[in-house]
Amino acid sequence: MEIETSQECTGGVTAARGFTAGGVYCGIRKTKKDIAIVRSATPAVVAGVFTQNKVVAAPLLVDKLQLEKSDVCSAVVINSGNANACTGEQGMKDAWTMVSTTADALHLPREQVMVSSTGVIGQYLPMENIVNGILDLSTKLSVDGNKDAAEAIMTTDIFPKEYALRFPFGSSKITIGGMAKGSGMIAPNMATMLAFVTTDAVISPAALQAALRMANNHSFNRITVDGDMSTNDMLLLLANGLAKNEEIREHTPAFQQFLAALEYVLIKLAKMIARDGEGATKFIEIVVNGARTEEEATHAARAVANSNLVKTALHGADANWGRILCAVGYSGIDFDPSKVAIGFNDLPVLQPNYEIVLDEEKAKAILSQDTISVLINLNQGSAESRFWTCDLTKEYIHINASYRS
Amino acid sequence: MEIETSQECTGGVTAARGFTAGGVYCGIRKTKKDIAIVRSATPAVVAGVFTQNKVVAAPLLVDKLQLEKSDVCSAVVINSGNANACTGEQGMKDAWTMVSTTADALHLPREQVMVSSTGVIGQYLPMENIVNGILDLSTKLSVDGNKDAAEAIMTTDIFPKEYALRFPFGSSKITIGGMAKGSGMIAPNMATMLAFVTTDAVISPAALQAALRMANNHSFNRITVDGDMSTNDMLLLLANGLAKNEEIREHTPAFQQFLAALEYVLIKLAKMIARDGEGATKFIEIVVNGARTEEEATHAARAVANSNLVKTALHGADANWGRILCAVGYSGIDFDPSKVAIGFNDLPVLQPNYEIVLDEEKAKAILSQDTISVLINLNQGSAESRFWTCDLTKEYIHINASYRS
Repeated sequence: MEIETSQECTGGVTAARGFTAGGVYCGIRKTKKDIAIVRSATPAVVAGVFTQNKVVAAPLLVDKLQLEKSDVCSAVVINSGNANACTGEQGMKDAWTMVSTTADALHLPREQVMVSSTGVIGQYLPMENIVNGILDLSTKLSVDGNKDAAEAIMTTDIFPKEYALRFPFGSSKITIGGMAKGSGMIAPNMATMLAFVTTDAVISPAALQAALRMANNHSFNRITVDGDMSTNDMLLLLANGLAKNEEIREHTPAFQQFLAALEYVLIKLAKMIARDGEGATKFIEIVVNGARTEEEATHAARAVANSNLVKTALHGADANWGRILCAVGYSGIDFDPSKVAIGFNDLPVLQPNYEIVLDEEKAKAILSQDTISVLINLNQGSAESRFWTCDLTKEYIHINASYRS
Repeated sequence: MEIETSQECTGGVTAARGFTAGGVYCGIRKTKKDIAIVRSATPAVVAGVFTQNKVVAAPLLVDKLQLEKSDVCSAVVINSGNANACTGEQGMKDAWTMVSTTADALHLPREQVMVSSTGVIGQYLPMENIVNGILDLSTKLSVDGNKDAAEAIMTTDIFPKEYALRFPFGSSKITIGGMAKGSGMIAPNMATMLAFVTTDAVISPAALQAALRMANNHSFNRITVDGDMSTNDMLLLLANGLAKNEEIREHTPAFQQFLAALEYVLIKLAKMIARDGEGATKFIEIVVNGARTEEEATHAARAVANSNLVKTALHGADANWGRILCAVGYSGIDFDPSKVAIGFNDLPVLQPNYEIVLDEEKAKAILSQDTISVLINLNQGSAESRFWTCDLTKEYIHINASYRS
């Protein structure tokens, strides 16, 4: 399916029919909104992808149990400012209290509520504030609450991240919309990010989970800010079926169409996270093509995207292509360095056989922009992959040398 | 063998009998010394370890060919300021010219000269300057030239790195001494570092190579500055036999004794590299114990040592133990997070079952020092490993955003 820009719509996580949301301040962070709820008017089929870190925060453990009990979900409650990670039994108890308080306030079965947290690790949640916040917020959910919700899940993010798409689907129209947050501890394989995506599509639970896993592999698993994989990453997708389309099932053309749209939305959100990486001044796309397999292209792109030396060079608008080739060299893939070509945007800098065609002045002009594409052609196949990241700056150090204080 | 501090001696790479060295400025860098030679009075048995990066700089390719032709070496020529990497055929030609010029000037067979380069990638060497530099330097080698040589191999290093040990060995005395350089692009598995170690021991070529590989695994392969593995890393060990001890062979007590001393010297040099990481203000030792295997302990220690978030937190003297546990969590090893204990120096901060015993004031005092030990007990075995690194600072960004200019 070709996605058209004209299909973009506003509304983020509440763009799809039947979803409401909200976000308020309850006293976890210093002054900013810190608790959000997303609600579906009818129970929604739910799919989730969770961190692969061995240290898993309490809300994720709770959600995994919830998913075993029920494959529908009617509400998600999310707090920022405190990750409820490494908090042991007390943390589990607190996460369950967030679930039950939200369920009771919204008159929902407890197994239909999911919970999520992001923020500092190793501190107990201020539960009195949170319970009061949930009670307050549960009366304020609306279709216009998407922006408040997107703000309430932010930690060190500079801007809220929302995106939605509405497109014809058979005789119906389907909407997919979502919100996400970054912006440190971002690495491939589901890092610190949280993302909540809603759709009114009618889709089977198996197809929803399959679509989410595939689209996630081409979006959130392709971004990195600092290579640190967090304890709290989660991506939830709720489908409440209010679009009344014919049910989408796996291995059908309709599934492919839905997947393409979902992937488009997730990539949009993922790129926003990379652009808003901690301290970032530049959005960087790494494109590796001419690879033998997509997997090898991804390995190479990830190594370049994770290289502190590449990211500092691009920060300084320094066309230091040697660091790029060097990172490909330790990515673990097999290739012939003398075949590689490297370019910035449409400017070639290295041709095969180490022919350096770098025009320093033109390169400096390109690298001084706030969006940079790095092209690496391995010239040994036809597979391609992309990774998205940002530059590494003094501001990143500043933010992370004093995160807790 | 117990190493005693009293066995430390001065002289670095020329501490062992029969070695001379020197370093001068020849015009590769702006003003600082940039070319060095280490020479043995008699042909020395030589062992080497080289980068595992797929992109291998020309001098390393030349040296590998030299090692096939000859297992003795009489001189090593090293330049800083230019890595002669990604330079194709011209780079190979230039590296061979460095070899032949040095051999001719010192009246040595060409196969007995090794070559090494460090600095910026992707630029051709200024060969006229280098040839003149070699001719000049070849007349100035002396037993007192160790300091000049150690300075001439520096790039962004703040201080020269030298160490030597002299110890009784049977009825003889053996000396092992060396010099090394960092200080960016340092990662485990032989990163940007160069190290040249000399000894007067009589040792078989096989035993020398085996000892070097083992000692390297416990020293230079246990340091990281920024996780970037370079194209030029090399570690050479020359043994000229002038100590006239009984020949050391593998699988003997004498071998174990030599290995212990070699490892001690290499760890001293490796730690100096970590302490002098680009922009570093603190030296950090990561100790993982209570592991099931040394390999798992090393994986965990490496993940923590490579974490930008841990390194910025320690820079800010922030006792953010959650980031440490989080990094162990994505290290790939299997463990139970609730069993883990974490401490800084002798101060416990986390006990098993997520019991937080952090005294913020005491932790701040420890983390404000320039040498920090992070202790992580997995409490599931008895194996241990150590990794050495430094903090991540704004100065690192400053250095690397403008390295070439």
